[in-house]
Amino acid sequence: MSDLIASRLRDVPDFPRTGVVFKDITPLLGDGDAFGEVVRALAARHTQGESRVDVVAGVEARGFIIGAALAHELGVGFVPVRKAGKLPGETVQSTYDLEYGSATIEVHVDAVTPGQRVLLVDDVLATGGTAIAAWDLLTRCGADVVELTTIVELAFLDGRAAMGERAVHALHVVGGADA
Amino acid sequence: MSDLIASRLRDVPDFPRTGVVFKDITPLLGDGDAFGEVVRALAARHTQGESRVDVVAGVEARGFIIGAALAHELGVGFVPVRKAGKLPGETVQSTYDLEYGSATIEVHVDAVTPGQRVLLVDDVLATGGTAIAAWDLLTRCGADVVELTTIVELAFLDGRAAMGERAVHALHVVGGADA
Repeated sequence: MSDLIASRLRDVPDFPRTGVVFKDITPLLGDGDAFGEVVRALAARHTQGESRVDVVAGVEARGFIIGAALAHELGVGFVPVRKAGKLPGETVQSTYDLEYGSATIEVHVDAVTPGQRVLLVDDVLATGGTAIAAWDLLTRCGADVVELTTIVELAFLDGRAAMGERAVHALHVVGGADA
Repeated sequence: MSDLIASRLRDVPDFPRTGVVFKDITPLLGDGDAFGEVVRALAARHTQGESRVDVVAGVEARGFIIGAALAHELGVGFVPVRKAGKLPGETVQSTYDLEYGSATIEVHVDAVTPGQRVLLVDDVLATGGTAIAAWDLLTRCGADVVELTTIVELAFLDGRAAMGERAVHALHVVGGADA
């Protein structure tokens, strides 16, 4: 699976700014067989017993793509975690620091019910800033977030360590100590 | 299907601005059974013969949710149509008028191959401005766009007429002459 993903990622130098090599997942998304395999691999961890989930939450915007397909594969609902101002109903918000400035994400207050088991999804784990904010936001709503699941982990950015006790899963790890 | 969708939409008055009643699809998305039924209903039109599609394109951001699940159901790839500046690779762009000002969307130049049959997806058909821009952008890339498929059509905004010869499908129609 890791090799399949590696073969469908595109490195884009200097995006979104000079010195950053962006891992572009659009070649993977555009390949129906590879996209299907990835979604089924993510789902396989959460189909039985204690690992089952009640709902999938995805972070805007690429997390919507992976998360919605995964929710559909699992036969559960999908909860969008959005940038501020996009959700029409009453929301709870979380503001977190970025390298420059800050960002705010939010979910509808009624998006999850207390005790619901939520699988949090994003395409890439980088520094973990967005993932931690999303995880804690869902927890504040009463959800039991069981895991952050991703396609790609950029290990050299130490997001896994930043996540602390929060469980993290990635299908493909880039960089890190053994790279 | 139309009744199921109606029962899972939430009317939010005065969003995104005073006087507009926003059709919120998040209750539908959050219900795994309803979400699954909707995705399968959209897919059923495109599984056989001449109606088959090679890829699904979804418009940022809610179109990502429906489109990705639909692509997964159909076993085909997914192409994101994004707001300007979000895609890392070389893109083609389209700028179109909004009620106030304008918006720009883009796709990667290599997102579709000439002759590919593309199903364009968004959650709601309103005035059709975004859908027309996305349709024509994909066509400029050589794609054969077969249909715009949506969950909700706001008939009183006349988007279907604005779409002209472009094929439109909606599972649930709100308003219009016979409402």
